[in-house]
Amino acid sequence: MRISYLGPVGTHTESAAIEYSSTAQLKPYATVQDAVNAVEVDEADLAICAIENALEGAVIETLIILQNQILSVNITAEIVIPIKHALVGMPKQSLENITTVHSHPQALAQCRESLMSLVPNAKPVAALSTAAAIASTAQNPNTLAIGNIRAANPKSLHVYNTDISDNKNNQTRFIALGKNTTRQTGDDKTSLVFTMAHDMPGSLVDVLSPFARRKINLSKIESRPTRQQLGTYYFFVDIHGHKDDTMITDAINEAQPKTQWLNILGSYPRWNYQTP
Amino acid sequence: MRISYLGPVGTHTESAAIEYSSTAQLKPYATVQDAVNAVEVDEADLAICAIENALEGAVIETLIILQNQILSVNITAEIVIPIKHALVGMPKQSLENITTVHSHPQALAQCRESLMSLVPNAKPVAALSTAAAIASTAQNPNTLAIGNIRAANPKSLHVYNTDISDNKNNQTRFIALGKNTTRQTGDDKTSLVFTMAHDMPGSLVDVLSPFARRKINLSKIESRPTRQQLGTYYFFVDIHGHKDDTMITDAINEAQPKTQWLNILGSYPRWNYQTP
Repeated sequence: MRISYLGPVGTHTESAAIEYSSTAQLKPYATVQDAVNAVEVDEADLAICAIENALEGAVIETLIILQNQILSVNITAEIVIPIKHALVGMPKQSLENITTVHSHPQALAQCRESLMSLVPNAKPVAALSTAAAIASTAQNPNTLAIGNIRAANPKSLHVYNTDISDNKNNQTRFIALGKNTTRQTGDDKTSLVFTMAHDMPGSLVDVLSPFARRKINLSKIESRPTRQQLGTYYFFVDIHGHKDDTMITDAINEAQPKTQWLNILGSYPRWNYQTP
Repeated sequence: MRISYLGPVGTHTESAAIEYSSTAQLKPYATVQDAVNAVEVDEADLAICAIENALEGAVIETLIILQNQILSVNITAEIVIPIKHALVGMPKQSLENITTVHSHPQALAQCRESLMSLVPNAKPVAALSTAAAIASTAQNPNTLAIGNIRAANPKSLHVYNTDISDNKNNQTRFIALGKNTTRQTGDDKTSLVFTMAHDMPGSLVDVLSPFARRKINLSKIESRPTRQQLGTYYFFVDIHGHKDDTMITDAINEAQPKTQWLNILGSYPRWNYQTP
């Protein structure tokens, strides 16, 4: 199996890909969209994409891909991994002399408070990935990077802190996107995206009620602007169950006419995640 | 009246403050939190804060303030203004020589596609506000800034483009936060925030149903991670009506016991916004 992901080597997404399959051939790409395109043109079988972080919420870049009405891939799995943000850099630096800390904006945001107390004078600088930040700090004194410790080791960098996340309960949920569909396992989730006619009384509840009445668990609802008009949204909803379960099929069939447009993003085994 | 806002002079928030009251004394602050604190310590009567942009969605910094369980201010008004992002800089520059474009991250995000076609070689650089970006470009050749044209005029900057927003329907919704409450006008909105016990079947629908059954319009739902555990959220909901309307009071009283914790953020006259 070939897995595409947001590279370079050593990103948290790579850790998720290894967690999903330790034997797959891993193919790093420059952006999440490029990783998904790789599946569409058969350069890869699955793309692994971060979708939600416990601290920062939705990963917008992935939601933008999922809100595409003619998406040719579907969600075939979810993977949840703990996120540890190591603070690394060239050896023997004094923290007072650090001028910049480089990382992916999501990682910088997840370490905001710790950075303010550890290196109050350092300016956060955005990088394309945690691994790119680590590669850049390896060549620049007076800088540090936040990233996956796995990317720091091969470069002989010093680890100043093994996990400077503001919240040690930090986890990220990833999805696998592929062309195949996943069969029922008895403990599945289904992800949906829909839009609605603007500002109809109670219309969102009309869409959700067919699930609630059947006691189908709604584990997530997320709204994103359609970019057409203030106050109009894409809604992303995760429900407990498989789209081929009769009860879920019935609920979706009842909900769909109450939306403007609804896509089933996929059904996949539920990851059994606990508080770390 | 004294209005605090995210400064410096010339931000879009300042435009919203002027739209709200052309005679108020305007007091710029360094962060949204500082502007809200100014009201809490009676340095200002109202804080004006951006809450939602038509292209980029929620303004997280403001939501983080509103999810505080012991908030001492409430929402007393909403203001919607069109957002035009001017591209400005020192006069007589050639666009090919521009190396960096400075602005607030929200503004950079809202002009992403236009920037890629207009100045493909320029690197986007985050600034604390659009006005700070304009102040910095006024002293740096080979740079441009994206911001409010009102901030560029006093600095004799050249306007390279009056609006490079990717989407010309761009609007931002602002809220006014103050210690007073606002009386019923007959066309009001009420904002709520709540959390729920994790993963209860249909529980979100249980909270929303009391509004839907009374045909109370739900104009917005937004979820933000609690930062405690993956899959637990703050829900921000806007409904049509005033908290002192009997029907709204009844619906809130019915919904509240189904949440873990619910705060009424305020009731305020609805802004009559149309597609621009």
